[in-house]
Amino acid sequence: MTPEQLQEGILHGNAAVQRRAMAKAITLLESTRSDHRTLADGLLTALLPYTGKALRLGISGVPGVGKSTFIETLGMQLTAQGHRVAVLAIDPSSTVSGGSILGDKTRMEHLSVNPNAYIRPSPSSGTLGGVAEKTREAMLVCEAAGYDVVIVETVGVGQSEIAVHGMTDMYCVLQLPNAGDDLQAIKKGVMERADLVVINKADIDPHAATRAEAQITSSLRLLGMHGNPDNASHNEQLWQPKVLQMSALKGEGVERFWQMVQRFQMLQTRNGRLKQRREQQSLAWMWERIDAGLKQAFKQHPKVQALLPDIQADVVAGRLPASTAARQLLNAQMDG
Amino acid sequence: MTPEQLQEGILHGNAAVQRRAMAKAITLLESTRSDHRTLADGLLTALLPYTGKALRLGISGVPGVGKSTFIETLGMQLTAQGHRVAVLAIDPSSTVSGGSILGDKTRMEHLSVNPNAYIRPSPSSGTLGGVAEKTREAMLVCEAAGYDVVIVETVGVGQSEIAVHGMTDMYCVLQLPNAGDDLQAIKKGVMERADLVVINKADIDPHAATRAEAQITSSLRLLGMHGNPDNASHNEQLWQPKVLQMSALKGEGVERFWQMVQRFQMLQTRNGRLKQRREQQSLAWMWERIDAGLKQAFKQHPKVQALLPDIQADVVAGRLPASTAARQLLNAQMDG
Repeated sequence: MTPEQLQEGILHGNAAVQRRAMAKAITLLESTRSDHRTLADGLLTALLPYTGKALRLGISGVPGVGKSTFIETLGMQLTAQGHRVAVLAIDPSSTVSGGSILGDKTRMEHLSVNPNAYIRPSPSSGTLGGVAEKTREAMLVCEAAGYDVVIVETVGVGQSEIAVHGMTDMYCVLQLPNAGDDLQAIKKGVMERADLVVINKADIDPHAATRAEAQITSSLRLLGMHGNPDNASHNEQLWQPKVLQMSALKGEGVERFWQMVQRFQMLQTRNGRLKQRREQQSLAWMWERIDAGLKQAFKQHPKVQALLPDIQADVVAGRLPASTAARQLLNAQMDG
Repeated sequence: MTPEQLQEGILHGNAAVQRRAMAKAITLLESTRSDHRTLADGLLTALLPYTGKALRLGISGVPGVGKSTFIETLGMQLTAQGHRVAVLAIDPSSTVSGGSILGDKTRMEHLSVNPNAYIRPSPSSGTLGGVAEKTREAMLVCEAAGYDVVIVETVGVGQSEIAVHGMTDMYCVLQLPNAGDDLQAIKKGVMERADLVVINKADIDPHAATRAEAQITSSLRLLGMHGNPDNASHNEQLWQPKVLQMSALKGEGVERFWQMVQRFQMLQTRNGRLKQRREQQSLAWMWERIDAGLKQAFKQHPKVQALLPDIQADVVAGRLPASTAARQLLNAQMDG
């Protein structure tokens, strides 16, 4: 299909045509061939006016916390209400292994065959920044195709949460009830970004879940991460991060979750924060990609490649000041 | 003085000569003239073998928390014990206003006239990254001159704590006793990096101080920020972040602070973390400077400058995908 046919299929195709066009468009976006990239850029730019109308929901949590079950339950409820739900994933392990543990359609039995749901596994290679870029672009394709809820999931590992937080309107962290004891689960860069913390599998140990809720609530308050309320005008009502107990397997708490999401969306739309967040995300994204591009060109420069190993060794060994090393390498690149 | 004379003065000069050579060397490092920079790079490289033997202590805290009084008291105790103490500062406001609120010698009445102390205010202009670079280089000058304790202070604002954390062996956060109520004081990027949290002015409200100590202790534990103990071998004893009450004005707790610092240094030297941290800091520093240099060259490129305003506006308005915008700008630079 030509980019024009893909565009037509995504925007106006019937169910089968649209689904095929989306898959082909995302494959095009994921291609590393530069001629594909040029076509992809053109396609994306053409689709852009039709994007941005979905709610973008980030979901992170360690393996075993029940993300798939939760997304399956939520997705089935939402499609029953007339929503169209896309599920994308960022799998940080894919950047190392090339394999994809997430986004496997078999994990979401019913949602994967639901005509109003679209599930796409994580792109399977490249740096995390590159994988995140593909996911972000896939999100735009889903939005152009009329999906009004886009869920981006990731495991609570490494920098992938930062990437998901940086492309979604609302960032939710799934947590097991034994949070207070499970230090690994509450990590730098996860909790502090959460708009909503969900204690899943709460039914397994209600007592622990309630204790975890209290602990996390107080921790969120103590850290006071989310924007300074003092910066808001008195008329402006800001969302404060919340904690919610759930048992996704039994379907308990999923409706309440969606109510909270809707309240978040309503508040943050009214006070302008949603628009602001997206603008900041877009600019941050542009600069992140510029930085990555500059660094890539730098590292591929023959003179830099020739000098780097020795210079790095000198810096580690304390023979060369870091700033001097940086200048030497920058000069090497600039001199050609 | 020539760089050779500066080097000689720093390494072997008598007290007066050394002090003058240090001041001149740091001024040379802070110069933006490229011929000065070349001389400075040569000087730094020559001094480097004589650096690295000091304990590098980062101190951050909001204005009013009592940093100067604390550093004055600590510095006087340490010099009395035979240490030589350098105090440097990173003043994030200087990067905006060009003025320096920190490092003013009048704030440390006794230490500033102590022959075994050297106080240098924050460099007064440039980006935060640039200011931090100068401070880091000044630290090396102090170490080459035989100062065995280098204190780098900053106010708890913006990204300056990250810079100080990134150049010191141990990062201490000063905190007022009303921490639990004072959300502004416990901020992202400060608490999570602390090796030691000091509740200063504890005597003013001992009850609040004790409550704050409990809260911060539990918060540090809950966040579990500091390295995963599971990664350490069983023989390897790791430092865990601690909380300490103090009244620097009355001198209470300052000795205990120093004991903790010494224990930190002993543990982290024995388990290899101190060496590892410094190596990582040096490499991170080199890449940070490279990134800054690449970005500066990018932003100064005439074609980029010509295109950037419109492209940025298109990205914010949602007319152009961020990744496409990045590629357009990168191509503009590469095409010359």
